[in-house]
Amino acid sequence: MKTKLNTIGLIGKYGQEQLGQDMRRLAEFLLARNLRVIAENDTARLINLPEVKGEKIESIGEKIDLAIVIGGDGTMLYVARNLADFEVPLVGINQGRLGFLTDIAPGMMLEEVGKILDGDFASEIRFMLHAEVMRAGKIVHTAVAFNDVVINKGELARLIEFEVYLDGEFVNNIRADGMIVATPTGSTAYALSAGGPILHPTLAAMAVVPVCPHTLSDRPIVVSSDSVIETIILELGDQRSYLTLDGQASVSLQDHDHVYVRKLTHPLELIHPSGRSHFDVLRAKLHWGEKL
Amino acid sequence: MKTKLNTIGLIGKYGQEQLGQDMRRLAEFLLARNLRVIAENDTARLINLPEVKGEKIESIGEKIDLAIVIGGDGTMLYVARNLADFEVPLVGINQGRLGFLTDIAPGMMLEEVGKILDGDFASEIRFMLHAEVMRAGKIVHTAVAFNDVVINKGELARLIEFEVYLDGEFVNNIRADGMIVATPTGSTAYALSAGGPILHPTLAAMAVVPVCPHTLSDRPIVVSSDSVIETIILELGDQRSYLTLDGQASVSLQDHDHVYVRKLTHPLELIHPSGRSHFDVLRAKLHWGEKL
Amino acid sequence: MKTKLNTIGLIGKYGQEQLGQDMRRLAEFLLARNLRVIAENDTARLINLPEVKGEKIESIGEKIDLAIVIGGDGTMLYVARNLADFEVPLVGINQGRLGFLTDIAPGMMLEEVGKILDGDFASEIRFMLHAEVMRAGKIVHTAVAFNDVVINKGELARLIEFEVYLDGEFVNNIRADGMIVATPTGSTAYALSAGGPILHPTLAAMAVVPVCPHTLSDRPIVVSSDSVIETIILELGDQRSYLTLDGQASVSLQDHDHVYVRKLTHPLELIHPSGRSHFDVLRAKLHWGEKL
Amino acid sequence: MKTKLNTIGLIGKYGQEQLGQDMRRLAEFLLARNLRVIAENDTARLINLPEVKGEKIESIGEKIDLAIVIGGDGTMLYVARNLADFEVPLVGINQGRLGFLTDIAPGMMLEEVGKILDGDFASEIRFMLHAEVMRAGKIVHTAVAFNDVVINKGELARLIEFEVYLDGEFVNNIRADGMIVATPTGSTAYALSAGGPILHPTLAAMAVVPVCPHTLSDRPIVVSSDSVIETIILELGDQRSYLTLDGQASVSLQDHDHVYVRKLTHPLELIHPSGRSHFDVLRAKLHWGEKL
Repeated sequence: MKTKLNTIGLIGKYGQEQLGQDMRRLAEFLLARNLRVIAENDTARLINLPEVKGEKIESIGEKIDLAIVIGGDGTMLYVARNLADFEVPLVGINQGRLGFLTDIAPGMMLEEVGKILDGDFASEIRFMLHAEVMRAGKIVHTAVAFNDVVINKGELARLIEFEVYLDGEFVNNIRADGMIVATPTGSTAYALSAGGPILHPTLAAMAVVPVCPHTLSDRPIVVSSDSVIETIILELGDQRSYLTLDGQASVSLQDHDHVYVRKLTHPLELIHPSGRSHFDVLRAKLHWGEKL
Repeated sequence: MKTKLNTIGLIGKYGQEQLGQDMRRLAEFLLARNLRVIAENDTARLINLPEVKGEKIESIGEKIDLAIVIGGDGTMLYVARNLADFEVPLVGINQGRLGFLTDIAPGMMLEEVGKILDGDFASEIRFMLHAEVMRAGKIVHTAVAFNDVVINKGELARLIEFEVYLDGEFVNNIRADGMIVATPTGSTAYALSAGGPILHPTLAAMAVVPVCPHTLSDRPIVVSSDSVIETIILELGDQRSYLTLDGQASVSLQDHDHVYVRKLTHPLELIHPSGRSHFDVLRAKLHWGEKL
Repeated sequence: MKTKLNTIGLIGKYGQEQLGQDMRRLAEFLLARNLRVIAENDTARLINLPEVKGEKIESIGEKIDLAIVIGGDGTMLYVARNLADFEVPLVGINQGRLGFLTDIAPGMMLEEVGKILDGDFASEIRFMLHAEVMRAGKIVHTAVAFNDVVINKGELARLIEFEVYLDGEFVNNIRADGMIVATPTGSTAYALSAGGPILHPTLAAMAVVPVCPHTLSDRPIVVSSDSVIETIILELGDQRSYLTLDGQASVSLQDHDHVYVRKLTHPLELIHPSGRSHFDVLRAKLHWGEKL
Repeated sequence: MKTKLNTIGLIGKYGQEQLGQDMRRLAEFLLARNLRVIAENDTARLINLPEVKGEKIESIGEKIDLAIVIGGDGTMLYVARNLADFEVPLVGINQGRLGFLTDIAPGMMLEEVGKILDGDFASEIRFMLHAEVMRAGKIVHTAVAFNDVVINKGELARLIEFEVYLDGEFVNNIRADGMIVATPTGSTAYALSAGGPILHPTLAAMAVVPVCPHTLSDRPIVVSSDSVIETIILELGDQRSYLTLDGQASVSLQDHDHVYVRKLTHPLELIHPSGRSHFDVLRAKLHWGEKL
């Protein structure tokens, strides 16, 4: 994060009118500190202050030094993907239920944001993913993800079949509901439900997790985040397959498509209140054993 | 199985022209034993013998004493669902790859079918499932399944949410990719990939297996086959959910739908060559350890 | 449970001096209802009332009509094994932490026990296990268990190898840390930690669960409680193997030992407060989703 | 590996007399290439050539430039631990069953070793683990491991309890059969059986895998190989706990012992025939799907 912040971006969870008051209080708090405030269009409408201009989510990244997000982890994922090109640090405020990414409680919002602006914070670098679909030799789709890139079946067919390559080396042929490539950030999300391991947030690794594989020994593999994972879709027939980003956006895949997943060049900076431990959040959310 | 068989039904895997010759050899073999032979329409066309009449899959069951199926386990599931009302025993001949249900190798077809007709066989009773979708107090769909009834998400949304009741008693609220109710027959299919246990083929029990549940302690539950499992679909919003039968047929579900799954009244009789063990098939297909 | 109770047995968790007061209050409560009270020797010492005679745990079963146990699930298992021959119903009072078997809270003790004595209760029949070790053709050990019979490795060796047979039919050869045969009661204990399914408490089935098997497709199998599971220990060499009952008692096994596990002839009756659901306990202990 | 090799060490699986002939052929092959050959004492006795001196396993490392091991993966682990201080590269020849570490088939032994000596090989750097037991402020035991350091229960008690810290930060309190800290090399061994992920062989990470944890959400965690994992043993009571290295050596632990596991300073160099893929071995051993 820059030492001198000029402009703060505010982004609230979509369609949550009741967040308006919190967002406005936060905007006023920032303005009172002589900061410029820009909000995503919907959020700006809720804030409804003449000093706070609205901006499209796709372009807000180029105008701000820090983004403050109010919502759940889903909102953070959405913002991270849209700001991926701009290297803007993110702060997450939850709406009442602790998130892995939104670790500031709403009641502590002004206090914690104040501390962060005063330079009392912890910074953490996380990587994101870049996915590319190649069809008949041409790139037909590219996308980014913060949690995971998922190749999954459509609603009916039980299994899709695909081949997996790591840095060009053949790994195996898998028949499954699908396959997840997760960042450390995403390792506590869908990949965990599918039987994947928890990756330490700063580990330079991705988890490749098959979803309900037909072969019971098809197990999660953890590989370097410098690797490229290539998946070739096989024999879809009348089945359908999709590429899904963070469980939020998806694109249809076709037979013989090659999907390449690799680390996105730009990393993402998460700003946390200082003294916060990732394991505190894990223990709380997963009901893990506390110190006696 | 009746002691005196008069009419045999023949059903081949759909669209497999190369099965024609095998089917014809089998039909001639049966006719030579003075049995009547009826075939499913497509199969009859491939057999192409004047003595073998074609019949629709939906109605063939009322005219035959035994059904011989050539194909994979998928074909057996399809036939079992269509013959569910008629209490016709099934024999399964695989196309080269051993199946759980199709345990006669193609090369042994005439020999093994001959033995069965001579009374040298093992009979096994399996139960099937009946599913009912109730919407706003009315039954809008009913279906049968041999392997499993699956409630699953559509292609995009990562999670659906539903409540589960057992014989009217609340079990829990689950957020997951879906949930499988599997018969013992289905316990070695999709349910196994989703982490379910193997149920002994003749056990009077069903496995209720969540698919990629968000709560890691949502584990497979095994309940009596006399129980009724009720699932209430919650808060789909713009997500979609489907009821899928044996991974082959599906119907769309809506918010607040109640899905009831119970044992189908009519059981299904499988005819195996005598001396065959279910565990032989499991060991072969799952690469289990053999006797030293 | 008999309609006319004469003598109640009291058994407290071993070595818990602080339970003395609760046990004494309970004894006085029972005596005031003109019931005879007998306590296990240690418990009798803590109760310290002239009307309450002590008795050995092994023989208390033949003198009482109902056993009230104060402790945790571990105490219930210990009592169940010792009373297995006597068909004495059991009531479990926990010490503050809800158990699967001890579902009466200490603060509700007198009220709930009073209701049970008044005939307001739910009765549930569970089965126990009988294990037999045969060595060189002779039975060298027999034992009972309520949760599970476990065949496990000693402290050093990583793997033991054994063959499994179901009703005389070969199942497979397993190399693993061990294998659990669990009752429905035990399915929420060690077997669950090892990846086994939850069996409905009244299901007539046992779960056979390999512990950390070397072959990843060695999965839990659920079989009828009328089956006999035979395990043959192979090639221990200098390794060691043990038969463990409910995780509390164990006996050393040798190479070529045959271990037979089957349902114990006498069932066990558990007495619960009426209106209690097994799933309430499961949801509370496993942090499952509640009704919205 | 050095470009100019002078002395080769030979080490065979302990107690395998039938390896003598192979070892001797190999020794003669090496001597014919004007290399010095030293063998581990038992192996030297089997080779029985005056030119091949015997040496203790603990000290052979300081005298050789390359160690050739004939046996299984277990023999490689044993040799790796004993040569850990000497940075001697290892070549593994299996005894007929492909291993993850012993990937040269016995029939190809001379041909493949010849190629390696001619400079045609692939070199791979793997890290090992260092474990330290601190009791009452003093280091009472240190050890090295190549696959895994395991903290496990004794033969009877079902659960041990311990606290886990990562680089001084509290992770959680676990009640389980034990916990495995595995290298990438060990990730395909015991850790895989316990539900851990497969780590790519060259990934700078360790997997921390609970064994049969009581809390179902206690899942494998993958952390940087630069981290220190500290485990504090709690409340053993009359239970027992052990620290086990590669499943081969063990030391008894006591209540309140602190166990520190970290990467061993010296890495290990494995020499493979060129053109060999780690995934080839995985596919073969785990029955994974091959390219169609």
